[in-house]
Amino acid sequence: MSYIAPVKDMLFVLEELSGIDDIAKLPGFEEAGLETAQAVLEESAKLCGEVLAPLNVEGDRNPSSWKDGHVTATPGFADAFRQFAAGGWQGVQHPVEYEGQGLPKLIATACIEMLNASNLSFALCPLLTDGAIEALLTAGSDEQKKTYVPKLISGEWTGTMNLTEPQAGSDLALVRTRAEPQGDGSFKLFGTKIFITWGEHDMADNIVHLVLARTPDAPEGVKGISLFVVPKFLVNEDGSLGERNDVHCVSIEHKLGIKASPTAVLQFGDHGGAIGHLIGEENRGLEYMFIMMNAARFAVGMQGVAISDRAYQKAVAYAKDRVQSRPVDGSAKQAVSIIQHPDVRRMLSTMRALTEGSRALAYVAASHSDLAHRHPDEAKRAEHQAIYEYLVPIVKGWSTELSVDVASLGVQVHGGMGFIEETGAAQYYRDARILPIYEGTTAIQANDLVGRKTVRDGGAVAKALLAQIAQTVEALKQHKGAAFDSMQKHLSLGHDALQSTVAYVVANTKRDPNAVFAGSVPYLKLAGIVLGGWQMARAMLAAQEKHAQDPSFYGAKIATAQFFAEHLLPQAVALEASITSAKGGEGYLALSEDQF
Amino acid sequence: MSYIAPVKDMLFVLEELSGIDDIAKLPGFEEAGLETAQAVLEESAKLCGEVLAPLNVEGDRNPSSWKDGHVTATPGFADAFRQFAAGGWQGVQHPVEYEGQGLPKLIATACIEMLNASNLSFALCPLLTDGAIEALLTAGSDEQKKTYVPKLISGEWTGTMNLTEPQAGSDLALVRTRAEPQGDGSFKLFGTKIFITWGEHDMADNIVHLVLARTPDAPEGVKGISLFVVPKFLVNEDGSLGERNDVHCVSIEHKLGIKASPTAVLQFGDHGGAIGHLIGEENRGLEYMFIMMNAARFAVGMQGVAISDRAYQKAVAYAKDRVQSRPVDGSAKQAVSIIQHPDVRRMLSTMRALTEGSRALAYVAASHSDLAHRHPDEAKRAEHQAIYEYLVPIVKGWSTELSVDVASLGVQVHGGMGFIEETGAAQYYRDARILPIYEGTTAIQANDLVGRKTVRDGGAVAKALLAQIAQTVEALKQHKGAAFDSMQKHLSLGHDALQSTVAYVVANTKRDPNAVFAGSVPYLKLAGIVLGGWQMARAMLAAQEKHAQDPSFYGAKIATAQFFAEHLLPQAVALEASITSAKGGEGYLALSEDQF
Repeated sequence: MSYIAPVKDMLFVLEELSGIDDIAKLPGFEEAGLETAQAVLEESAKLCGEVLAPLNVEGDRNPSSWKDGHVTATPGFADAFRQFAAGGWQGVQHPVEYEGQGLPKLIATACIEMLNASNLSFALCPLLTDGAIEALLTAGSDEQKKTYVPKLISGEWTGTMNLTEPQAGSDLALVRTRAEPQGDGSFKLFGTKIFITWGEHDMADNIVHLVLARTPDAPEGVKGISLFVVPKFLVNEDGSLGERNDVHCVSIEHKLGIKASPTAVLQFGDHGGAIGHLIGEENRGLEYMFIMMNAARFAVGMQGVAISDRAYQKAVAYAKDRVQSRPVDGSAKQAVSIIQHPDVRRMLSTMRALTEGSRALAYVAASHSDLAHRHPDEAKRAEHQAIYEYLVPIVKGWSTELSVDVASLGVQVHGGMGFIEETGAAQYYRDARILPIYEGTTAIQANDLVGRKTVRDGGAVAKALLAQIAQTVEALKQHKGAAFDSMQKHLSLGHDALQSTVAYVVANTKRDPNAVFAGSVPYLKLAGIVLGGWQMARAMLAAQEKHAQDPSFYGAKIATAQFFAEHLLPQAVALEASITSAKGGEGYLALSEDQF
Repeated sequence: MSYIAPVKDMLFVLEELSGIDDIAKLPGFEEAGLETAQAVLEESAKLCGEVLAPLNVEGDRNPSSWKDGHVTATPGFADAFRQFAAGGWQGVQHPVEYEGQGLPKLIATACIEMLNASNLSFALCPLLTDGAIEALLTAGSDEQKKTYVPKLISGEWTGTMNLTEPQAGSDLALVRTRAEPQGDGSFKLFGTKIFITWGEHDMADNIVHLVLARTPDAPEGVKGISLFVVPKFLVNEDGSLGERNDVHCVSIEHKLGIKASPTAVLQFGDHGGAIGHLIGEENRGLEYMFIMMNAARFAVGMQGVAISDRAYQKAVAYAKDRVQSRPVDGSAKQAVSIIQHPDVRRMLSTMRALTEGSRALAYVAASHSDLAHRHPDEAKRAEHQAIYEYLVPIVKGWSTELSVDVASLGVQVHGGMGFIEETGAAQYYRDARILPIYEGTTAIQANDLVGRKTVRDGGAVAKALLAQIAQTVEALKQHKGAAFDSMQKHLSLGHDALQSTVAYVVANTKRDPNAVFAGSVPYLKLAGIVLGGWQMARAMLAAQEKHAQDPSFYGAKIATAQFFAEHLLPQAVALEASITSAKGGEGYLALSEDQF
């Protein structure tokens, strides 16, 4: 099998780090304890391992194709999507009243990791559909919810997000697509949207496009953008499909990776206007889209975790199999499997530590989202929501940036074979590269982290997390041995680096915004490393507790945490130096364009 | 134009950092001063910019193709190769007596950078030919030299290196290709070689394969490998081409990048035996191959510098052109070109600082090679040779590892457009990925750095370099201002990190080889960052001196050096922590295979 879902590690994280027992105490989640999680994860692992993972290479070699406005998905994808839909997997985290399974985001997150690890291109279709569902549930009318959400959850239809235009990528203020009111409550849309993932395909009967556009009197900039639902086929009152709407796929992109996922250019209104309906209130489109995007950003962060794990699994398998060179310590006279060589172990352990650290951080974030939605105490809900929102740009930015490095190490472990496409390691390297770009580049995430998530509350959430890290450092001191000593030392240094960075950001953003924003991505990475390292420290403490029950598993967890402490956490100090050195008025920030 | 050779920066490095004036005092190099260098570089820049660079994309889209044993190069390549050969560019650094130009390696290095920046796939053919020439000049008989070298220099023929076999990649002890003596001084070779760059093509009349193989009575392992010359067409006594030899290309690989460069599987002896002749003495093949490989490793390091510069140039052009979002400091109410945004500047400056730092270090290494060959004082020659040999694995390993990061940043600067193949940034990301693998992976370079280059002399060369770095730190103290303060501080910390790492490596390699070799790649990277940062510090001092003459150029150099100090040099301390933490008997080094 090409991908085996790491159910054991996932359950460890759910139980020991993300507090699934507490989640199962929340109203409506009474059935959602560890036992349920295990059953769901094992079932999901089967579908992902047996059906979706084998199609991943096929999708790379035989991408989605466009002809005369129609897009044909990779052979096998439509059938796999039917199986995915029939199993109810689109609805895992969505409400029971719309035919979803109503499970916590925490459990859904593990399923989403598997889905993306098995087949990133395929998983993008459900990912975007999830976003459409969330936006409709939050801002749609009752009728819109009833019309669209059950069909999206059943997989009869799929959803898309239409933001980008040729001149409007990171900067949505530049959106130009027009929506003209028709007097009957409907609008006609005119414009071009690009980079629309699964914007056209043959896997479902209808495609529900959520589209950002401007009404005639809308103010300029981001405050004049509204959100519309524009289905590929209009929907009759009885829910059956009506006429073909005037939205057409004029081409799909030729991309570096995720080739099976069609990236569409959509033309709205070239034949009289694409009929759409306003979602929520006029001019609040960006706000609604952010709901979708926050869900999507978190999910893209999971894609980073997912592709890292897939790349790790492949590299480990190769390193156990490939025999080359004698051991450097002279312990054997014959060539040994390369996993015996220290540098190969270093590479594999880097891949593993980053994967496990980013997984743990993301799952912990998901549990805060569940607590934010369901905790009986309103103040607690707000507290958890603030933590979740602080973590989203970090999960998105850090997990995806590191996935590029992890996939690159995966190629390196394979040596020359890694560069040959048939080997498969190169696909992860190509696929991963989009993750730090779409749903907001790392810089966009870092802007969010600095502005909305750190400066706005004067660093309060960050400080609350730092206090928790300090408690973990204290707990580490109760243990002896090299692993605990290293973790205590480096987590403590990491804590201090994050603390002084947060203080620097809070103090300087208004005074010298160029300097702070020049350090925004390093701040995001520093936060990821320290918070991820903190989760590994918590994992280490839990593993020590249970060590005797399964020495192989828990011993590896402790060794991986130690590796994280010694090889990854030290980067925090280097990043701090980089962040705090910038002054907006000098050096590279002051060069003229011509000097580049 | 898609690539403009950075002649100005190259000449700055030649003059201010690599001491071209001293090189021009060496016997035989009297004509090779700055003026000659400038003339050669400008001429080379024309060929590379006008002829080779435009073919780079074509090579990616329309790779070399195989049919019935024949390989057809990308359209336009054969003609470009004729122009390259006619200009005498293959012979820049080779002896005049074999029709070369006899210029210093220092000048040739700048030409090689341009060649690779303009077209990496194309440049591989001359790169391998250079290696073949060096091996023949070092170990070949007079007759072999006369037969092969002038034809290789003229570009009528090209050369290859045949090391790898399916079971023998990094581990050449496992080579199995047989060479059977025929009694007339010739041998017949039988075996399969893989990953042979430009192993078959239609750009030249003959291909001179240098092949590692075993004679019947050879000892096992690397001490039983001999080197043979096996031309595609046998050469008659008068130098004309004779019969087709029994070496055939049975396939070429489907690769992630450098697609125009055919990577051949060569079958020797399937039709009676491939006729070859021994080069030098039996069983000394690996030693000779190392001559070739050291030249090739240095050249691959230059490929890293080259692709970094190409990626940088493309990213800068896009960042000046693409308009998106208002400035974070509120200095404009409209969207501005993205080069105005601090994070884009950070990315571009990272790319630039790494490119300029790795270029400077490589050129300085080249100057040591020239001094090692031509200095009148034997002791000085040995001293420079030792420094050059210390630097080769660093130039190879560090410049190529960073080129992957630089190319990746290049994609990131382009945002979503970077992921679209038509944009071109993705090609560099794909092409660069082979560089840390071929001609010895980074781990192989790091083994060399630890074993032969550090432990063997008790760290003597490293310490000599450290003493020079300390002098530069003192010189920095004579200057005021943020840029010099930062460089002085971080170069000093870097010096200390490298110093203690070298001491650790010397003290522990025998005692705990697994621990030291687990830190070998981090040691290599640390050495690269500190030595590269040192060159940037020297550049800063030189630029300060000449600032008034060209404030734009020298000001940018100082700003880039300051960036290197503040953003890159701090990594040295993090790497040191990682290197010195490992203990071979514990943690991830002690895990069983099953625990991965």
